[in-house]
Amino acid sequence: MLLSIPKYELKARQEKFQKRLSERNCDGAVIFAVTDIFYLTGFHFHATERPMGLMVDPNQKVHLFVPQLEHEHAEEYGAVDFVHSYPEYPGIKHPMQYFKEVLQKFDFEGKTIGYDSLGYGSPMGYRGPTVDQLIESKEFVSLHGVIEELRFIKSPNEVELIKESCRWGNLAHRLLQKYTKVGLSEIEITSKASQEATLSMIETLGPDYKPHGKTAYAIFRGQIGPESAFPHAVTQNLIMSKGDTLVTGAASDVFGYHSELERTMFVEEVSKEQEKYFNYMYKAQDIAFEAIKPGVTYASVEETVQKYFKEEGITELTRHHTGHNIGLLGHEAPFFDLGDDTVIEPGMVVTVEPGIYVNGLGGFRHSDTVLVTEDGIEMLTYYPRDLASLIC
Amino acid sequence: MLLSIPKYELKARQEKFQKRLSERNCDGAVIFAVTDIFYLTGFHFHATERPMGLMVDPNQKVHLFVPQLEHEHAEEYGAVDFVHSYPEYPGIKHPMQYFKEVLQKFDFEGKTIGYDSLGYGSPMGYRGPTVDQLIESKEFVSLHGVIEELRFIKSPNEVELIKESCRWGNLAHRLLQKYTKVGLSEIEITSKASQEATLSMIETLGPDYKPHGKTAYAIFRGQIGPESAFPHAVTQNLIMSKGDTLVTGAASDVFGYHSELERTMFVEEVSKEQEKYFNYMYKAQDIAFEAIKPGVTYASVEETVQKYFKEEGITELTRHHTGHNIGLLGHEAPFFDLGDDTVIEPGMVVTVEPGIYVNGLGGFRHSDTVLVTEDGIEMLTYYPRDLASLIC
Repeated sequence: MLLSIPKYELKARQEKFQKRLSERNCDGAVIFAVTDIFYLTGFHFHATERPMGLMVDPNQKVHLFVPQLEHEHAEEYGAVDFVHSYPEYPGIKHPMQYFKEVLQKFDFEGKTIGYDSLGYGSPMGYRGPTVDQLIESKEFVSLHGVIEELRFIKSPNEVELIKESCRWGNLAHRLLQKYTKVGLSEIEITSKASQEATLSMIETLGPDYKPHGKTAYAIFRGQIGPESAFPHAVTQNLIMSKGDTLVTGAASDVFGYHSELERTMFVEEVSKEQEKYFNYMYKAQDIAFEAIKPGVTYASVEETVQKYFKEEGITELTRHHTGHNIGLLGHEAPFFDLGDDTVIEPGMVVTVEPGIYVNGLGGFRHSDTVLVTEDGIEMLTYYPRDLASLIC
Repeated sequence: MLLSIPKYELKARQEKFQKRLSERNCDGAVIFAVTDIFYLTGFHFHATERPMGLMVDPNQKVHLFVPQLEHEHAEEYGAVDFVHSYPEYPGIKHPMQYFKEVLQKFDFEGKTIGYDSLGYGSPMGYRGPTVDQLIESKEFVSLHGVIEELRFIKSPNEVELIKESCRWGNLAHRLLQKYTKVGLSEIEITSKASQEATLSMIETLGPDYKPHGKTAYAIFRGQIGPESAFPHAVTQNLIMSKGDTLVTGAASDVFGYHSELERTMFVEEVSKEQEKYFNYMYKAQDIAFEAIKPGVTYASVEETVQKYFKEEGITELTRHHTGHNIGLLGHEAPFFDLGDDTVIEPGMVVTVEPGIYVNGLGGFRHSDTVLVTEDGIEMLTYYPRDLASLIC
């Protein structure tokens, strides 16, 4: 049972990144994005006011720069050549002065240095100088999007972790449906379902399971009754009523990998009107599944779905694009959006979630996580999609 | 029972912010920081690839800029004069082109514009132009830290919400201690305690309770046995053994407000060595409580604690400063750190958490949330601190 990315794969990612650096004539790089650092090193950390960074030096060695309190942790989990640390932030001597010393010692001065951002950023009270204020370089070259693009295509191991995430999301969702009853609060239902699924999961997977994110959960995020017409709402602690339209969400993070399972459900009964919109949504998702294959653009999938909505005369009920990549973040580029001309390739993992929103009645959206294969898609989420299966 | 910040207080915050703008000769401002937007408007949102922003125009009107899918949500919850939206990201026409039109329509062109950052930032695949690429200004003036500083001193309503957070963190922690047993996994214990506390909380507070964050929880974050020597570790799904040193954490977010309660506990028995380090930590926290009062600097509190550690000869067992402000974020500036000369004022809410870390044995840290009063502190967390009360 695979529950983490093996070290050889982390090293292979670093080699790919170094290849991108030489293509851009960079001698080295400094990286501050938390997700990208985890992707390249396997070191998962809790980002705070204390700056952290990754450096690739001109001799191809990979370095982590962390506060002292993360030093041993970084040594144990980070697949890197060197770990450097500083006492504390803000400190009498600022952490970025220690960062500067590492850059100088490892020969960054006067070189062409790639960067994702020129300094550490955090809303938690961090302030500090940028790298170009610390050392003289030949040139600073933006690497914006470079590691993100490495993350576009998932390896077989990454797909395994996402499948593991889907499995426990499915259980949490099953329990959510079981516990949804008139008169109960959304938090009561989601809390009970999430806890029970989490316990089953950890009994099954054992102590090697590291969530690096959330354990199994199933949620409504306030998408209950008429409030479900607000997609991406936040938990409102609402009470279930008979006839409510519900939009759910369920998953379990596995070594930082996400999946997305969402279903439109109904409390006890379904009106003709609810059924009508459910069927539009269901058909739109089918159309999207059919449209996704290697060689076509992300935009073309969105165009196909929007063509259907237009034919049905319900364009004004839509509020967002059909989906996006998913992996170490819940939303990743590219997007199934009219403005995204990226070409779909095998190994990409995407969410498929066209939605319809009817003020006063509710929202209608399923989301499934699918893998792009050589000739179409493989469904990774597997919860029933049909109306009869989705009445609580 | 207060469960949210009333609209008049949100408006008063906006007026204070506008005062800061005129002090800096700014005619208007653009703000992209999620926490600061929530602070000024009460609009809580789930940040994704879709850009959002707040504008204060030269006529003192306050605007929210959101994706269409958040439009009604922003209208309902945001205490602002105007809500503007765009269809989707990336879209055929980029969202920042809509943003530009709002700036032009509301008279930002040619003016002195304050900003926190010049563009929206998100790791979720967002790319887009900066504000200075969109319009001509007289000048762009950085407002870095200005809203953060407004957040330093908490109002009586904010303190009430933090006290509510402490109350349910206390219950979650009580249950965590009750359910901690040899042979159980950290996730099993934390999940059970967190769910039970959450259910009690929502039954008590009712549907007006909005977490805007996490509902009641109690966690270990992998700080179990020797692993507790890594502060700020992440959940490892470890199994409890007799004699383990544990470091916990518990709270419940209330309308986005955090508190912090952490305790050092022991599974079934305590060795003389564990007791020795516990006592050092306990004394250090007492010394910090005593040192915190209006008129002295944050640095002076850290100096007093470090003096004690030096006298005891255990400086090398420390790894982080004594604490920080807390509020809408779990860590906020200022910090009890040698490098922070901010002067303590009444109304500041801080964590007090000096820690000692002994490799192979464990970590020793309590954290309490306290309010600075006119002449000292008021404890907001109230879980027992003494050793006898902390054996599971």
